[in-house]
Order: sequence, then C-alpha cells, then structure tokens
Amino acid sequence: MNKGKLYIVSGPSGSGKDTVVGLVMQKLGDESRISVSMTTRQPRGQEKEGVDYFYVSEESFLNNVEQGNMLEYARYGRYYYGTPKAPVEKWLEEGKVVFLVIEVNGGENIKKYFPDAEKIFILPPSLGVLEQRLRGRGTEDDDAVSRRMTIAREEIKRAVEYDYIIVNDLLDDAVNSVISIVEAQKLRTANMKNKISEVLENA
Amino acid sequence: MNKGKLYIVSGPSGSGKDTVVGLVMQKLGDESRISVSMTTRQPRGQEKEGVDYFYVSEESFLNNVEQGNMLEYARYGRYYYGTPKAPVEKWLEEGKVVFLVIEVNGGENIKKYFPDAEKIFILPPSLGVLEQRLRGRGTEDDDAVSRRMTIAREEIKRAVEYDYIIVNDLLDDAVNSVISIVEAQKLRTANMKNKISEVLENA
Repeated sequence: MNKGKLYIVSGPSGSGKDTVVGLVMQKLGDESRISVSMTTRQPRGQEKEGVDYFYVSEESFLNNVEQGNMLEYARYGRYYYGTPKAPVEKWLEEGKVVFLVIEVNGGENIKKYFPDAEKIFILPPSLGVLEQRLRGRGTEDDDAVSRRMTIAREEIKRAVEYDYIIVNDLLDDAVNSVISIVEAQKLRTANMKNKISEVLENA
Repeated sequence: MNKGKLYIVSGPSGSGKDTVVGLVMQKLGDESRISVSMTTRQPRGQEKEGVDYFYVSEESFLNNVEQGNMLEYARYGRYYYGTPKAPVEKWLEEGKVVFLVIEVNGGENIKKYFPDAEKIFILPPSLGVLEQRLRGRGTEDDDAVSRRMTIAREEIKRAVEYDYIIVNDLLDDAVNSVISIVEAQKLRTANMKNKISEVLENA
C-alpha cells in the first residue's frame, strides 16, 4: 500500500482554514484524518476532548515533550499547545490523507520530520475582508482585531514559504482547490508505480 | 501575467489519450490550446488542415527542421511528423494551458526545451481492455493489433519516466484527473506570488 500524505494548512486567523479543511474532510470521508492538538488549558464552551484538543496537565504535556512525542509545541500565555507525533505517523502508515492545521511557525518544524508534507497557505481575498470577518465574529474588541490584523500581515508575507496558496474567497472554490491538490498528488508517478506493474502483469 | 503551462500527454494507442485531452479542453475552454503536428503525408478522410495536422511538402518540412522551428520530429515509413515550436512558445507566453499529445519518444526532446512541462501518461486499465479497444475500432487486422500490443507493453514500461499517471478506466474520471492536475498546478506558490502582494497592498 502507498504511504499516505500529510498536508500542513496555515493561514491568518479569519482566513477560514478550519472551515475549509472541515469541508474537505467531509468530501474525502474515511480516507482523511485530522491531527488534534494537545493543550494544557481547560476546555471552553462546546469544546470536546479528542475533537478540539486533547486536554492534559502541564506535567503530562512536558513529559510528552521530553520523550520526543511531540512534532512541535509552543507556549501561548500560560498554556502549552502542541502536535502529538504518534497519530500522524500511524495514519500516514495506513495510507490516509492527513491534515494538520497549524500556525505559520509550527509548520516549519513539522516539515523537518515529514519532508514529503505539502504546505498549503489559505489567503483571505483582501485585508479588508479579513478584518470584516474578524469583526463579524463579534467576540473581539477593536484592539484585539487590530492586533490580529498586524499578525495577519506578517503571516501573509510568509505565504511564499508554502507549496500551494489558496485564496478563500468563495468557500466552495477553496474546498475544491484543496481537493484538486490532493487528487493530483495521488496521480504522481511515485504513487502509481504499483498500477503500472498491475497493468503489465494482468492480461 | 503568469506564464502558461505545458502538459505533454502520452500513452499507448487505444489508451484514449486524444479523447481525454479533447474533453479536458472543452472543460477548460479558452484558457487551453492544443499543439497541432506538422506532417508530409496527405489528409485522410475527414481530417482538416490545422485541426488534425498541418500538411506540408517534404521540402517545406525539412526546411523547418533545418531552421530549428521544430520541437521534435520523426519519420514513420515514408512520412515525416513533427511539432512546430512557435505556437507552443506563443501560447505559453500568453499564459495558456497547452497540451501536446505525443509519442513516448517525442516527449523527452520536448522536456529539454521546456523543462517546466509536466508529463502525463494515460494508462489503460489492463492490457485486456486495451486489446478489446483496438479490436473494437475494427480498422486493424489481428497482426496489426498484436504489433500494437507489443509496442504498448514497451511504452507502458516507460510510464515511470512521467510525472503523473492516469488510468483511463472511466472516461469522466480520467478527464477530472487531468483537470485536478491543471488546477493544482495553478495553485503552486510560484504562480500565486502576485496574489500575495495584491492582498498585502489593497486594504
């Protein structure tokens, strides 16, 4: 069986990267998996263990880091966030299409572990639209929105480090773009060698 | 404007490569072009000048070869066949998606001129199906079919030299596979750099 493929997906807050990946996974069904992060913070609102995050104690988190179980991790404020290595390795071994939605900085470290991973950057159609989307959430005040916009500008400058860039203007188009990348990747000769032998050996 | 992209499409006789590319071009519309070969043989049946081939005299053909106007050429039996360079260069300059349906051998030379070209191999689902298709044409006797099958086996072995392999089992799937490759290619960061500046510069 062919090994699976890892897609690292990043984009500024408000780019819609989680929504895009969620819909792509619905289309791909059982052939796809998404990496769930580990965190030391408490669940908020509707969040669910194993869906939004794996919630662990700081001791357990740092233990995992020490034992080399994390692909990457970072501390934001008082809390740790990181990506467990084992599930991603298992899914790739099983031939799955694996998505990892992650901060721009986190992606670099992961590419070191998985050099074959493809990096996709989700770009908003414009900074104006991005700002509207952030305000539309209604969860953040003006200061928070303008801080996010500053970060967004810095992140967008780093889009050139990615393999693919998708503009999330119309959601359906963005979803289809990811699907095209996944489908094209499967047709790469390295993934189709078995098929050549199959055709030659079976009359 | 971004430069266009050249796709070299090969596959054994009976793989359906011409049909697949024809339908892909219908879907892509005006953004796509197909390279038309030049030949010294006479038009047959319904064939049309500039659609099936450019029909020229041997003198004119060899003149073009001498002047370096051909991407590749070969002699089959008494006739010359070749690929004119100028239209492909012009279309790429215009940003078009350009298809070149060509023998396995011809593809190599063209990749030397256009190293960015992507090579797609169209594979039949099995040798049995390929043989049925060739017989189904009703235009060739047993000897001709078995000669074509021998050539097909040799050509299929060289599919590993291609960038992408598409199995033409269900025609619609094969067409969509080519479309995925074309769409994914457009999303490559090298083709999207303008978009990054656009987003950063327009608030």
